[in-house]
Amino acid sequence: MKHLVMVVSYEGTAYEGFQTQPSGNTVQDKLQDALWHLTGERIEIEASGRTDAGVHALAQVFHFATNSRIPLERWCLALNGRLPDDIVVRSAEETTARFHARFSAVSKTYRYSIRRSRWPNEFTRRTEFHHPTPLDVERMREALAHFIGEHDFTSFCSARTPVGSHVRTIYDARIEFVPEGSDYYGGAGVIHIYITGSGFLQHMVRIIVGTLMDVGEGKRSSDSMPAILAAKDRRRAGPTAMAHGLTMMEVKY
Amino acid sequence: MKHLVMVVSYEGTAYEGFQTQPSGNTVQDKLQDALWHLTGERIEIEASGRTDAGVHALAQVFHFATNSRIPLERWCLALNGRLPDDIVVRSAEETTARFHARFSAVSKTYRYSIRRSRWPNEFTRRTEFHHPTPLDVERMREALAHFIGEHDFTSFCSARTPVGSHVRTIYDARIEFVPEGSDYYGGAGVIHIYITGSGFLQHMVRIIVGTLMDVGEGKRSSDSMPAILAAKDRRRAGPTAMAHGLTMMEVKY
Repeated sequence: MKHLVMVVSYEGTAYEGFQTQPSGNTVQDKLQDALWHLTGERIEIEASGRTDAGVHALAQVFHFATNSRIPLERWCLALNGRLPDDIVVRSAEETTARFHARFSAVSKTYRYSIRRSRWPNEFTRRTEFHHPTPLDVERMREALAHFIGEHDFTSFCSARTPVGSHVRTIYDARIEFVPEGSDYYGGAGVIHIYITGSGFLQHMVRIIVGTLMDVGEGKRSSDSMPAILAAKDRRRAGPTAMAHGLTMMEVKY
Repeated sequence: MKHLVMVVSYEGTAYEGFQTQPSGNTVQDKLQDALWHLTGERIEIEASGRTDAGVHALAQVFHFATNSRIPLERWCLALNGRLPDDIVVRSAEETTARFHARFSAVSKTYRYSIRRSRWPNEFTRRTEFHHPTPLDVERMREALAHFIGEHDFTSFCSARTPVGSHVRTIYDARIEFVPEGSDYYGGAGVIHIYITGSGFLQHMVRIIVGTLMDVGEGKRSSDSMPAILAAKDRRRAGPTAMAHGLTMMEVKY
């Protein structure tokens, strides 16, 4: 029995999220189908975390055990030949039975991308949320800084999140603005919001981003974040940002 | 009667090229359908040139005449609301009956993008050609330089190109390499080939690029280009590069 850990990237547009569903139309199902065709084994993989329908990943991590004798260096090519072209396995390494893609993770980084421009961009429309009206990036930066540290994120998770601790730690959060073109008041460009934390509750990044967009639009002040956190009430935060702007960037172990 | 000129960008993946076809599944058909719904007029637009099935444009230019009284500043929003989300009209200006999107053009710039990396990129797979084996960018640069100037491009156009002069002038041609990641011998990254010319014959950019890839792979020497041009024989040049790596970047008037 060998224990393998792999890094996979995917464009989530076509899928009902990462986690297996009866429809079979998820990233996990596609990976497990490819593993089955390759090894003849019905393997159930464990990933670092789920991603919602439409969310992407540059580096999702998953592990599994197998009796296959395929040499380590052949796995990527063999799997990619059996996967649809919006899912690409990028690395395969041998690990031990102790490693768990979810429980061994020490941090995860997500990126949410917002295109601030007059017209949408047809080339990046699947991975960027288009925001045609002004957004004040400096105020969004000020608001984002309030999330760094350990907080109860009850206000910033789906009301359907299972009971249990909603305390999570955000290690780092920053906004990068990449200017592009000049068709716009304030300058067109892409606002990338990077958030690194110990773990994330359901919809947590998307609700933080939805609330930051309220701030960027002038609907909330940037220093109202601590009060929203303290309220522990989902209704106090902003809307859940659309899934397609979100990408899982990195998992650290 | 008003004369309008517009700039449109599109991701060509879903279309059978720019020029109208009986199927109706072309960029021109989609634009004309949107114009019809908007104005009630059956308008036939004239573009700066056709693009093949699967080819993209950042800035295709077209003109038409209309009796519509829609104010100039409303055209983009009104058309974009009626267009599929892979076609975006970016500007609209008034012009005169003398302007012709094709005949008034003085130069066009195309870009061909090649991703040199071990694994394909699922986010850019629709606009970059993936080349998993080594490509020597320096040799491709040397080869490309031979195309600058006025030449007979018979060797570098489709054998189905109509009879007539195959002489065209290339004003500028250059390669930009954008490094990305390190999963690769020589460094992974994207090779962007930019070619600006007076006009282009059918498949001309794609055949130049296919020939440059032969050079990059070491199958041809970079100084063999003048002999291929002189032969005026399509069979002497390399293969036609895949359509999806090509983007029309700019038309100058």
